[in-house]
Amino acid sequence: MTTSPARRGRPGYDLESLLQVAVKLFNERGYDGTSMEDLSRKLGITKSAIYHHVPSKEELLRLAVDRALDGLFAVADETAALEGPAIERLEHLVRGSVLVLADRLPFVTLLLRVRGNTKVERAALARRREFDHLVTDLVKQACAEGDVRPSLDPAVAARLLFGAVNSLIEWYRPRRDSPPTDLADAVCTMAFEGLRG
Amino acid sequence: MTTSPARRGRPGYDLESLLQVAVKLFNERGYDGTSMEDLSRKLGITKSAIYHHVPSKEELLRLAVDRALDGLFAVADETAALEGPAIERLEHLVRGSVLVLADRLPFVTLLLRVRGNTKVERAALARRREFDHLVTDLVKQACAEGDVRPSLDPAVAARLLFGAVNSLIEWYRPRRDSPPTDLADAVCTMAFEGLRG
Repeated sequence: MTTSPARRGRPGYDLESLLQVAVKLFNERGYDGTSMEDLSRKLGITKSAIYHHVPSKEELLRLAVDRALDGLFAVADETAALEGPAIERLEHLVRGSVLVLADRLPFVTLLLRVRGNTKVERAALARRREFDHLVTDLVKQACAEGDVRPSLDPAVAARLLFGAVNSLIEWYRPRRDSPPTDLADAVCTMAFEGLRG
Repeated sequence: MTTSPARRGRPGYDLESLLQVAVKLFNERGYDGTSMEDLSRKLGITKSAIYHHVPSKEELLRLAVDRALDGLFAVADETAALEGPAIERLEHLVRGSVLVLADRLPFVTLLLRVRGNTKVERAALARRREFDHLVTDLVKQACAEGDVRPSLDPAVAARLLFGAVNSLIEWYRPRRDSPPTDLADAVCTMAFEGLRG
C-alpha cells in the first residue's frame, strides 16, 4: 500500500476541515469562550498555520454562519420561484429548511446561538430576521388565501412553526434518528395537519 | 408622607429580588461568565451582603432552575391526576407548560440553556429528561388509543411539540405579545389541529 503525500506526518488541514473543527469548538465552548490559541491546540497546528488559511476568528464565524444562512436562503429563493397557493410554498420552505438543518447541523446550531456582540454576529442576526420575515409573509399570504385556521395569528404561527423546526439542533442526531426526509415529513405533518389523528 | 424604614438609604434586597437580578445577569452573560463580583456590582451591595442571603452562586442557579422545573412538574402532577384520553391529558400538559413558561420566562430561559458543567446543572438536566419522558409516554399512550396520526413517530412528535413550546423563550415578550392564555390556545391549535384550516 502506498501512502499518499497528504497522509504523511501530521495531518494537513484545508480551510474546510479547519472550519469544521472551529465550529465544533465554538458550539462546545461558545464563540466568545474560544480563542485562536484553543483552536490551534485542538488542531495540533500553530496559530500562524491557521492564519495561513483565514485572517481571523471572526472570519471563521462568518464562514460558518454563512454556510447555514446560504442554505436557508437557497431554499427561500427556490420557494419564491414556485407558483401555487402560499400554503404549499410555505410547506416547501419548511421541508427544505429541515433538510438544510439536518445537513448543516453544527453550522445552524452556531447560527441560532449567535447573540450579536460583533459585526459578523449582527449581520447574521439581520439575515435571520430577513428569513423570519419571509416566513411570516408566507403565513400571512396563506391566511389571506383562506388556507390557515382563522383563529391563528400569522406572526405567532410563523414563530411556532420555526420554533419546532429550529428545535432540531437540540435533539436531532443524524446517525441515530430517522433520515432527514422522514424527519421533514414528520415536521410538515405535525405543523400543517396536527398531531391529532 | 412617612418613609418606611425599608425605603431609607440604599434599597435592601431580599432573596427573591436578588434572585431575579441574578437570573437576568446569568441570561445576559451566561452562568459561567457571571461572577459574584459582577452580581454585587450590579446590585450595588457587597458580596458579603449577598452571602447573607445565599451561600453560593451555584445555590442561586439551583433556586432559579428549580423555580422553572417545579412549575413544570406541578403541571405534570396535575396532568397525572386527570382521567380521560391521553390526547386530552397531553393537551392539558402543553397548555399548562406554556402558562408556566410565560409566567416564569427568565427562569425557564436559564433552565433551557443549562449545559451540565456542575452538579446543579446535571441535576437540572436529569429533571428535564424526566419531564421529557413524561411527555413522550403521554404521546405514546395517545398513539395507542388511536388519537395520534399513525404516520407520526411518538418520540419525534414529542420533541417537535416541546420544540415549539420551548421556542417561546426566544420570542415571547409578555408585555408586547398576546396574553398567555391566548398563546396557550395558539400553541395547542397549531400542535394538535395543525396550521392548515
